[in-house]
Amino acid sequence: MIADSIINALRSALGEGNFALHEPRFTGNEQRYVQECIASTYVSSVGVYVDRFEKELAAYTGARRAIAVVNGTAALQVALRLSGVQANDEVIVPALTFVATTNAVHYLGALPHFADSEETTLGIDPRALRDWLKSIAEPAGDAYRNRQTGRRISALVPMHTFGHPCDLEGLLAVAHDYRLTLVEDAAESLGSLYQGQHTGTFGLLGTLSFNGNKIITTGGGGAILTNDERLADHAKHLTTTAKLPYRWDYVHDEVGYNFRMPNLNAALGCAQLEQLPEFLASKHRLFERYQAALVDIDEVHLVEEPSGSESNYWLQTLVLSDAVADQRDAILQVTNDTGLMTRPAWRLMHRLEPYTECPHAPLPVAESLERRIVNLPSSARLA
Amino acid sequence: MIADSIINALRSALGEGNFALHEPRFTGNEQRYVQECIASTYVSSVGVYVDRFEKELAAYTGARRAIAVVNGTAALQVALRLSGVQANDEVIVPALTFVATTNAVHYLGALPHFADSEETTLGIDPRALRDWLKSIAEPAGDAYRNRQTGRRISALVPMHTFGHPCDLEGLLAVAHDYRLTLVEDAAESLGSLYQGQHTGTFGLLGTLSFNGNKIITTGGGGAILTNDERLADHAKHLTTTAKLPYRWDYVHDEVGYNFRMPNLNAALGCAQLEQLPEFLASKHRLFERYQAALVDIDEVHLVEEPSGSESNYWLQTLVLSDAVADQRDAILQVTNDTGLMTRPAWRLMHRLEPYTECPHAPLPVAESLERRIVNLPSSARLA
Repeated sequence: MIADSIINALRSALGEGNFALHEPRFTGNEQRYVQECIASTYVSSVGVYVDRFEKELAAYTGARRAIAVVNGTAALQVALRLSGVQANDEVIVPALTFVATTNAVHYLGALPHFADSEETTLGIDPRALRDWLKSIAEPAGDAYRNRQTGRRISALVPMHTFGHPCDLEGLLAVAHDYRLTLVEDAAESLGSLYQGQHTGTFGLLGTLSFNGNKIITTGGGGAILTNDERLADHAKHLTTTAKLPYRWDYVHDEVGYNFRMPNLNAALGCAQLEQLPEFLASKHRLFERYQAALVDIDEVHLVEEPSGSESNYWLQTLVLSDAVADQRDAILQVTNDTGLMTRPAWRLMHRLEPYTECPHAPLPVAESLERRIVNLPSSARLA
Repeated sequence: MIADSIINALRSALGEGNFALHEPRFTGNEQRYVQECIASTYVSSVGVYVDRFEKELAAYTGARRAIAVVNGTAALQVALRLSGVQANDEVIVPALTFVATTNAVHYLGALPHFADSEETTLGIDPRALRDWLKSIAEPAGDAYRNRQTGRRISALVPMHTFGHPCDLEGLLAVAHDYRLTLVEDAAESLGSLYQGQHTGTFGLLGTLSFNGNKIITTGGGGAILTNDERLADHAKHLTTTAKLPYRWDYVHDEVGYNFRMPNLNAALGCAQLEQLPEFLASKHRLFERYQAALVDIDEVHLVEEPSGSESNYWLQTLVLSDAVADQRDAILQVTNDTGLMTRPAWRLMHRLEPYTECPHAPLPVAESLERRIVNLPSSARLA
């Protein structure tokens, strides 16, 4: 039984006990910063920790600006709006992603249009996307439109799956040729580099998530990254209800959002960010430990950082060979039963009830990956 | 000069020093609960404090259920969706409100339709609303539609301005007669009672806010109140990405939101809620102190809890007589210059750039109040 071999391998890597899929680790200044924050009474939408978290995120990622918001979904919604996405546009997103990527498009009244993945990076395959666009897109004014639906295709949202950078060079070229604005969903890839540059800084805008299951957490939170000062100012304006900076008047000049990250959550984030290099090292060690433990099981492989990239290894990912794909559910069952928490890939977006009517490319690789992926316990505390 | 008399009165009530409009007070178990929360590692979307905060909110308000979310705007957006508001519907909201009330309607693709206020409660005037609907609404199937726009009018959203309960009995009768679902925006009125019953529990759903400037704060946060178990379960489902409770599959059966309140913020909220009776008493004392200090200035009056209601006195509110309305800006100027933070009412919704094209009733009272309101320093710590 392949499931038994996998359990033995995981036990040899992790030891006995129960292991969650991903747990945060608070071994730094979390308690201190949060206490200081409460003592200051500035727990809400303004405060020194929000400003500091934004500065430190920008410095860490190399983005000119970072804007802290309530979560990664909100970050992507605002980034897409700032990228020019209009109601009834189509926006290319991967079929293999968490539903938030797709929801952010929907919230703007636009339609997600699902693209296939690469086997290696798990992210959108630029060659398959180019072929698909060649067959369905036609020039219309300054943009391209989907000739099957008549709608403008306005943006491309690659997602760095489980922390592994996708083929940004290839995707930037497709975006250029089809006049798509590239907005990166880097919710899972804080700390991951593509050709030495931080994911989330290649598109016009990029977005991060600090949900409890991410490599660092603020409880709930996210951020928008951009190198464009004007867009950054606009992002801050939109995420703080678009209120004009009058001394006392309450005037809002466009429809904004209550999306600012509270200072309390930013205090936690500042402490977490200090430990990110440590977390990255732990997660890389865990990858190596899993790799050594799994090396003799021919029917599976661990997803490795793509060539030219450094991955944060957010979620360790086992991919089954076709021959044993039908044993995925058995593997999930016995691992979870024995206290080793595992999970499959997300159900592909075009098969979720609210999105079944949305346009999509042929999805052979995403459909195959969906059947073969098993995520393993991945906390930084494990190695 | 009326401004000088007001400053003298405020100084006699408050003493010397600088006074913010509203500051939170963390004199209870805030540090302890937040420390415990971090130590537990459950800082994010599940945890004991979220569950406890919801239970205690329900117990305090008398609602059957409370669902904690990221902020009051999100709470209202979800409550309106659950109340059956559809894209292109019209939703009645006060012209005199914070922009969040209006934005929540807009996010659903519906149109805000602005109603006038009462001089006494500052909330929507049921008599004026009935007259207006009589002139513009016509039956259409199960609902009424605006004959000027052809759109269905589906919901009525009273807001309890600065914490003062509006005329719920009158508004419930209008809602009944015109088949409008009543959803209460109780963002400002936690602790306020109408005929002995908590605001936010009269409509099909009601919403609260725990932003930093509110009577209790979670940093950022809000809640949905309802007596309908089915709607409560649905609210929880929608605010947690509409993920079905499978053991490991990621299946979402409708378009949901990432709106859950983090446990870290709920920990703060549990500590704040314990002190709410104290805060309410302080704010009532502050009202009495202001009232005594201002009693001899004939040109102004303090807004008092409406007859039959108990107000939380969230923001103390001075209303100028018509005769001195033109001195409002001078009053704002000199009070703020001397360290007494004051503010005017919000700019009325129909005069905000994104909403100028929306339908509205005649707004004589709201327009008059907008010119005459000055909010005073209101923190619970002041008395």
